Amino acid sequence: MATVAMNLAQKLIHAHLAGGDPAPGEEIALRVDQTLTQDATGTMVMLELEALGIDRVRTESVQYVDHNLLQADERNMADHLFLRSACRRFGVWYSKPGNGVSHPTHMQRFGVPGKLLAGSDSHTCAAGSLGMLAIGVGGLDVAMAMAGEPLYLVMPEIWGVRLTGELPPWVSAKDVILEMLRRHGVAGGVHRIIEYHGPGLACLSAMDRHVIANMGAELGATTSVLPADDRVREFLEAEDRADDFTRLVADDGAGYDVTDEIDLSALVPLIARPGSPGDVVPVQEVAGADVHQAVIGSSANPGLRDFAVVAAILEGRQSHPQVSLDVNPSSRQILADLTAMGATTALIQSGARLHQTGCLGCIGMGQAPAIGHNSLRTMPRNFPGRSGTADDRVWLCSPETAAAAALTGRITDPRTLDMDYPTLSLPSRSAVNRAMLEPPTDEPAELEKAPSIGSMPDLDPMPADLAATVAITVGDDISTDEILQAGASALPFRSNIEKLAEFTFRRVDAGYVERAEHPHAIVAGRNYGQGSSREHAVLAPRFLGLRLVLARSYARIHWQNLVNFGVLPLEYGDDSDIPAAGDRLEVSGVPDALRDGHDVEVRNATRGSTIRCRHRLSARQVGLILAGGRIPAFRAAA
Amino acid sequence: MATVAMNLAQKLIHAHLAGGDPAPGEEIALRVDQTLTQDATGTMVMLELEALGIDRVRTESVQYVDHNLLQADERNMADHLFLRSACRRFGVWYSKPGNGVSHPTHMQRFGVPGKLLAGSDSHTCAAGSLGMLAIGVGGLDVAMAMAGEPLYLVMPEIWGVRLTGELPPWVSAKDVILEMLRRHGVAGGVHRIIEYHGPGLACLSAMDRHVIANMGAELGATTSVLPADDRVREFLEAEDRADDFTRLVADDGAGYDVTDEIDLSALVPLIARPGSPGDVVPVQEVAGADVHQAVIGSSANPGLRDFAVVAAILEGRQSHPQVSLDVNPSSRQILADLTAMGATTALIQSGARLHQTGCLGCIGMGQAPAIGHNSLRTMPRNFPGRSGTADDRVWLCSPETAAAAALTGRITDPRTLDMDYPTLSLPSRSAVNRAMLEPPTDEPAELEKAPSIGSMPDLDPMPADLAATVAITVGDDISTDEILQAGASALPFRSNIEKLAEFTFRRVDAGYVERAEHPHAIVAGRNYGQGSSREHAVLAPRFLGLRLVLARSYARIHWQNLVNFGVLPLEYGDDSDIPAAGDRLEVSGVPDALRDGHDVEVRNATRGSTIRCRHRLSARQVGLILAGGRIPAFRAAA
Repeated sequence: MATVAMNLAQKLIHAHLAGGDPAPGEEIALRVDQTLTQDATGTMVMLELEALGIDRVRTESVQYVDHNLLQADERNMADHLFLRSACRRFGVWYSKPGNGVSHPTHMQRFGVPGKLLAGSDSHTCAAGSLGMLAIGVGGLDVAMAMAGEPLYLVMPEIWGVRLTGELPPWVSAKDVILEMLRRHGVAGGVHRIIEYHGPGLACLSAMDRHVIANMGAELGATTSVLPADDRVREFLEAEDRADDFTRLVADDGAGYDVTDEIDLSALVPLIARPGSPGDVVPVQEVAGADVHQAVIGSSANPGLRDFAVVAAILEGRQSHPQVSLDVNPSSRQILADLTAMGATTALIQSGARLHQTGCLGCIGMGQAPAIGHNSLRTMPRNFPGRSGTADDRVWLCSPETAAAAALTGRITDPRTLDMDYPTLSLPSRSAVNRAMLEPPTDEPAELEKAPSIGSMPDLDPMPADLAATVAITVGDDISTDEILQAGASALPFRSNIEKLAEFTFRRVDAGYVERAEHPHAIVAGRNYGQGSSREHAVLAPRFLGLRLVLARSYARIHWQNLVNFGVLPLEYGDDSDIPAAGDRLEVSGVPDALRDGHDVEVRNATRGSTIRCRHRLSARQVGLILAGGRIPAFRAAA
Repeated sequence: MATVAMNLAQKLIHAHLAGGDPAPGEEIALRVDQTLTQDATGTMVMLELEALGIDRVRTESVQYVDHNLLQADERNMADHLFLRSACRRFGVWYSKPGNGVSHPTHMQRFGVPGKLLAGSDSHTCAAGSLGMLAIGVGGLDVAMAMAGEPLYLVMPEIWGVRLTGELPPWVSAKDVILEMLRRHGVAGGVHRIIEYHGPGLACLSAMDRHVIANMGAELGATTSVLPADDRVREFLEAEDRADDFTRLVADDGAGYDVTDEIDLSALVPLIARPGSPGDVVPVQEVAGADVHQAVIGSSANPGLRDFAVVAAILEGRQSHPQVSLDVNPSSRQILADLTAMGATTALIQSGARLHQTGCLGCIGMGQAPAIGHNSLRTMPRNFPGRSGTADDRVWLCSPETAAAAALTGRITDPRTLDMDYPTLSLPSRSAVNRAMLEPPTDEPAELEKAPSIGSMPDLDPMPADLAATVAITVGDDISTDEILQAGASALPFRSNIEKLAEFTFRRVDAGYVERAEHPHAIVAGRNYGQGSSREHAVLAPRFLGLRLVLARSYARIHWQNLVNFGVLPLEYGDDSDIPAAGDRLEVSGVPDALRDGHDVEVRNATRGSTIRCRHRLSARQVGLILAGGRIPAFRAAA
């Protein structure tokens, strides 16, 4: 390999390759250095470690508490106590509630160029900003990595995106990733790693790059990578971790499987319209619409700059009377820095509601807008209902565009504000404080399980002959938020699958739970399961009897989660006779059907027709499907 | 009257007397200058103004939004939009979400010595700290006052409490009111106004006095009053309102109906044990117990000092790893001042979760503790379940005691901390900013009603012969939190009685709603309906058919709410044969029975026995009961 010029993604993959041929489409195995879990997925990861019989983790692992912080009843703090006890039990770092959102906090405290991070959160890819290979996967894949097993992945294509020019005033990193979404849509990055390179990178700080890498998840990409260059060195120096810097860039002359180019100088403020991060238009096209809420925060715009620029725009001015201006600091360090530089005062005086550090409205934990009232957010996602409001109107934009709307009460191109683009003076050293990060200890510890904490359901093997009734049919781009909502009503049950299962598809078709038989099937369109990494979107329907999904195509993580829990994901062709709800589907001789190539015949017994499907399973994955999932397979092998 | 030396309470009553004889026990009518509503009660007040056919209010009225700020779904912001539209419709000030908790904010922006404030919040009495007559009542009484009607009240006894000495280090205003509760319990102030006087007042700032006046509600007092002296002048000067100051003190030689004395020098740090604000012991008696949460905030300790002293204790130190330290600034002004003096930074660096400005955990909107885990709070109430956790362990204490527990992870007498009592340097001028207070306008406006906003239910007259089945029997000191919970599940329905009614008595006896017949009765013990002013605790059971309550005694506001909505509140004697659930109670010829003196015979048809009861209704109130409540009575008279 030494004689071939490699791009950065290839270098990172080769450095961690533990098996398989790294050719696009082939399954590869990768050694994992670090793991990241958050509370919404982490409780289940800890229950999986317990179910797997793991004693101590083999990776540098950090458990964050950032998603569910509202504590509307006793279950929430019980989850926090359980997670803290599990960290002590298994040897994991514990980041207390209030310390920060996992992605920027991990970048600040643990990110190291060249390392491989697996995280049970789809935005784990944000750490690609530091020259890491950072991949969001389902919780069970993270649990297995913590147990020392490799991370299995379909080798993606490498998509080189060359950045040139320099961002104009009032245009920032968020507009770069919104431009990618405008060009390529929410499935444009599936089975690809996006590698940003070129001279345009020079004007983007490591935290700006985080913004771009983070929302690679919205493109469906396996991950995004950016070089570890001087901007990354500066970042690590500011975080008091200069020694963790390693320069890591693509070789001269390295090529890419796919290429694209963005001239940063030509970008304008962009905004994603309600319903999808992929429905992007220039702000000026939709300017003038009434705005009732502006929310600043989340891992999509987590940097000190992202808050400081809002403060600078609002300083000495008042937010519009009809606007609720909600500010969610992404970490306590950023809030400390923001406060030290006077920006917190500017925000408070301008009328901001300063919320606790965390994800909050981004995951529908509070801040739900009123029906039909526009909410502009610097967040990464606006899938229908994710905000907590069924008929929401959530737009995604840069901090500059959100601040402009907060001032005027209307969607406003920030370039039309009657002021100069603020020049920010940010500290060169961050207010580093590690006291809310509890290191792993060697002291023996028991899991602290309140009655609200469940356990991993039993997972039965695949029957030799599968006959499953279709419980629901859905269209294209169904997100995990639609399969299993987050938000204030459901999130508190994330550690209890039996209770959580009652929420499955509630916002799409409330009758699903009643109709779901053991076993049953789901029929979907393209890009099924886009969005978050939550394995609950498989575990809950699996608990209700799901064993078969027929879709036109799948989002990467959800497909892998289906396999990990023994649900057979098949793909049907364009000319298929698509089954309807209530149809009875049959697959005879499942083991032979899966092992004997990639074509599978599904018989629709109700219609008397046959659907020719394909599966993309590796031989390893066929074994998982037959065993009922990765946990029973691991137990059988132990 | 000029020749008789009057105490301050008498002066305030005489200055506002519009009818009746101000002798203890008699009903009097008072002219109202100002009203205060908050969002949890205000939506219903606005619906009442609509039901009464009111065009513009006759009082200086302010609508605050401080209780429900979580926005877990679309209803919450819909309530905010409705309240803002109602303020425009009826001519009311609107204090935006984020501006602050009603009581300290009202004191800062609107409080004027000598004025009468009626508020639909039981802690309205806090404004007694400024030499106001400030009375918490049900929403309908506030709506009627806004309509220009007098406030009716049973003339209380005046209870003079003489303060001497000076508070020792580590003891603060909260310990004064906890001492009152230790001595007299949660019903010790019923039908009394507490007037604090004496040389000890000199060491208490206006905001310290707010702490003491606020929790007079926990003693069941009609209100508390304190003189408008130099401390009050200093406060108004700091708020840029020096012109609003009027000196107002008791006449020399004025007497009191009841007297008590507290030597401040002899006080020690006190704490109320879980379950009741009246179960008070010295902190040192319970020191050492594990603590998992410390919450700083609420109208019970709302002052800049109360946060600054915590910051000073924690500065340069770290909160204990097992403690969630939650800080809820009480107003954006106090957060601005706190930030300017560096205290916000100290709190953040010590590990505090800095929450948005508002009531939050005090009303069970978030911050719910884990079952069986101790939570120390600077808040006013710890009724069972009010925190959002059914089996909660919430303790009430001073900021000093809460900060000590945050440091040590145990209940700790702050005098035993190894440090000097901090000397605070507070600004002499506050960071006044009125931009989040929208003044009344003369522009015509429509009510903005989302589908989640209900309307006032129809209220039918009392039948001539009442036969009601007992749906539930309960014991002593049942709070309105137990009748109709606040918190994250119920509070969003406060503008919709039909939905809210499903929560009635849910935490006490979930079968009540099913058993409640039209009409039905409730049988209770002493001090029935203590706690909050929420008229929903009457409206919801009334909607379900409640027409008769038999109790040993009543909390003041709840009794008045029962009358206002046409529910007959009777009192039975010690030797009564107390009815059981399911018994059928009969009152024959209700009009004559009520008009003909204060004795009423209730026949228990199930047992064949008779219960001799008394009512305390004025002739005016008998009319309300017979009409079905104050709204139908007002409509009939119009």
